[in-house]
Amino acid sequence: MNAEIIGVGTELLLGHTINSDAAYVARELAALGINVFHSQVVGDNPGRLEKALRESLDRSDIVVTTGGLGPTGDDLTKETIALVAESPLVEDAASAASLAEYFGSREMTENQKKQCFFPQGSTVFPNPQGTAPGCAVSCKGGKIIIMLPGPPRELLPMLENSVRPFLANLGHFSLYTGIIRVFGMGEGKVAQVLGPLLDGANPTAATYAGDGELFVRVSSRAENPEKARQMALPLQNAICEKLGPVVYGIDVPSLEHVVVARLEKSGQSIATAESCTGGLLAGRITAVPGSSNVFEMGLVTYANRIKTELLAVPEEMLARVGAVSPEVGKCMAENVRKLAASDFGVGITGIAGPGGGSREKPVGLVYICVATKNDTFMRVMRPLGRYPGREQIRRRATSHALDMARRIMDGLPMDVDWM
Amino acid sequence: MNAEIIGVGTELLLGHTINSDAAYVARELAALGINVFHSQVVGDNPGRLEKALRESLDRSDIVVTTGGLGPTGDDLTKETIALVAESPLVEDAASAASLAEYFGSREMTENQKKQCFFPQGSTVFPNPQGTAPGCAVSCKGGKIIIMLPGPPRELLPMLENSVRPFLANLGHFSLYTGIIRVFGMGEGKVAQVLGPLLDGANPTAATYAGDGELFVRVSSRAENPEKARQMALPLQNAICEKLGPVVYGIDVPSLEHVVVARLEKSGQSIATAESCTGGLLAGRITAVPGSSNVFEMGLVTYANRIKTELLAVPEEMLARVGAVSPEVGKCMAENVRKLAASDFGVGITGIAGPGGGSREKPVGLVYICVATKNDTFMRVMRPLGRYPGREQIRRRATSHALDMARRIMDGLPMDVDWM
Repeated sequence: MNAEIIGVGTELLLGHTINSDAAYVARELAALGINVFHSQVVGDNPGRLEKALRESLDRSDIVVTTGGLGPTGDDLTKETIALVAESPLVEDAASAASLAEYFGSREMTENQKKQCFFPQGSTVFPNPQGTAPGCAVSCKGGKIIIMLPGPPRELLPMLENSVRPFLANLGHFSLYTGIIRVFGMGEGKVAQVLGPLLDGANPTAATYAGDGELFVRVSSRAENPEKARQMALPLQNAICEKLGPVVYGIDVPSLEHVVVARLEKSGQSIATAESCTGGLLAGRITAVPGSSNVFEMGLVTYANRIKTELLAVPEEMLARVGAVSPEVGKCMAENVRKLAASDFGVGITGIAGPGGGSREKPVGLVYICVATKNDTFMRVMRPLGRYPGREQIRRRATSHALDMARRIMDGLPMDVDWM
Repeated sequence: MNAEIIGVGTELLLGHTINSDAAYVARELAALGINVFHSQVVGDNPGRLEKALRESLDRSDIVVTTGGLGPTGDDLTKETIALVAESPLVEDAASAASLAEYFGSREMTENQKKQCFFPQGSTVFPNPQGTAPGCAVSCKGGKIIIMLPGPPRELLPMLENSVRPFLANLGHFSLYTGIIRVFGMGEGKVAQVLGPLLDGANPTAATYAGDGELFVRVSSRAENPEKARQMALPLQNAICEKLGPVVYGIDVPSLEHVVVARLEKSGQSIATAESCTGGLLAGRITAVPGSSNVFEMGLVTYANRIKTELLAVPEEMLARVGAVSPEVGKCMAENVRKLAASDFGVGITGIAGPGGGSREKPVGLVYICVATKNDTFMRVMRPLGRYPGREQIRRRATSHALDMARRIMDGLPMDVDWM
């Protein structure tokens, strides 16, 4: 089966939004063994969209559109597809009920209601993250158009929960997917370490980088779910073994989920004292439901005065070595641990930039310290090459703190291949 | 002038790489007043690329390709373009000298040398970040093909330093784009309020939603930048007037940037005490470079014990009304303001879910309080309809806090259409 992707939206065409949806959809199709030969973007223009759809249906079995399903007037994807599929738009009762529930007592505008209409005979894909469901509709000659919402936080769960089963069902096969999560090794090095393990056709393995972390996705196709799983497991295990302690989990949502679960399991707790990361680490920990069992307190001690007043970092130390120093990072970690009476204390101090750097303490220098009852561990992030940006430095520093806590709990070595 | 973009690379088609280049090129073209009507991706397949190029040249004045200029065997963009442009590849002496300098005493492979060849008559764009220069070549009928390298760190400086001056030379009309940022009104309601203002052709206006916020983009085209701006301003002003105080800025990066800039301008400061948002608000404020001028301290008082110990929230109050209450929210805001000796103090307490809710205090109930020297303001987020998810509740609560601080500083009313 061949497929192609049409991104709909003037904001994509003008570059105001980066078209990450096309990549997400393509990966999903590739994992299902469906070839993608064309991918394009059209603006919010029904005439151009109609032309693109007709050309796509001529050459491909499946056409996936992303975007243009929302409540505003320029969202014309569905109307155009109804025209091309020769199926009039009819109201879907389940979607109408779900939308009414979503709005509750709030007023619903006429254009919101548009979102419950789909080409007759569609398979509707619910959207628990937003108001616009997706759908799949059959056209002449057995061709299929799949319509998905534009915002990635709506599109990604819909791909996972609705589109994958729909397409697997269509091809009469089952799919296994395992996501191996990695922190502390670059994509190039992972590819080098895994070598020929990345070359298979079924099962397949591929690496994806994002947000300073990395994952390896293992997929396989077979006639039933158990067989697909059995086909993939040896490859998945071999990859985990080759990568070693940089693997922090399989099929887990994030590093912070792993750390919170691990703390909960052992009845331990963590507290944070942040300078340059400004609350992001506490924010990541508390993003995990149930984190109140392991997290009581976080401090954002941005100013030196506050480091001294709240955390008892000696004024003398700040004057002598400066706020961005191993001494202050360790002191923050140890003192916040004592203050919170927790098992782990994290201290992060550094220079996220773009300003504030010097020759001795350049932008990108960050000390990440984790204190336990008996020890204080430290990693140092140093600038390498071009400035990766304030948010990347901050995000990466918080990932290091979480990774260090995980490794301490699991008795793993602290060294990483990559900072 | 019309342009279109062709991204070249199987890794783009399969979604291994997100096609951010298309957005970067489109923004550059838009800023130069060149319309982008088509954008597509083709794999490393000379036959398909040739077909795409010929179709693109039929309908557009300029075709920009990204990717496929490197030394590896699958990089065939240049050969294909030479064929379509009917200009044989010839060596460019300056590029050859630059490449020889780059390699120094290291051996250069035959396919590295390929990078110094360009279609005869090309304007070559040097690549200080890599080994593959870009180029522009004229085709029959005055059409132009521009070839750029794929890696963004090579493409971005080339756009800035070479492509922009090249295109500016060609002479054309200019484009104006203004982004109006909105918080506190849903997309459906905004569309309803703006009504026919969204229907224009030149200037145009369209709404985009994302991350609990919303923006309205106003665009216009004219023969010069000033005229384009003058064409758009009446529409832009009319939209701002219709929307009123929910507009928090035009052409600003985010709500937190507006608040930090506004605080800086007036020499004021802010401190935060967060419960359910767990540091996210501090994280958003400190994401703004220079925020250390207006932010010294943030507390994440997740546990009741910490609210009492660090923030002096009376134990009696916690026992009487509970941590999620207007009283505790206000007390947190007022006490963190005093503790930090700041002008504004924010207190956020609520239930982000999925667990922890009750009939009286359901998941989604959040009190957001902002204290000043003389007053304490409060907004209450209440669950309406379906549970939007933990992260959306947390994100939205922090946006409310920022929006409240902005409105206090600007003397605007506090009421929002939408919580």
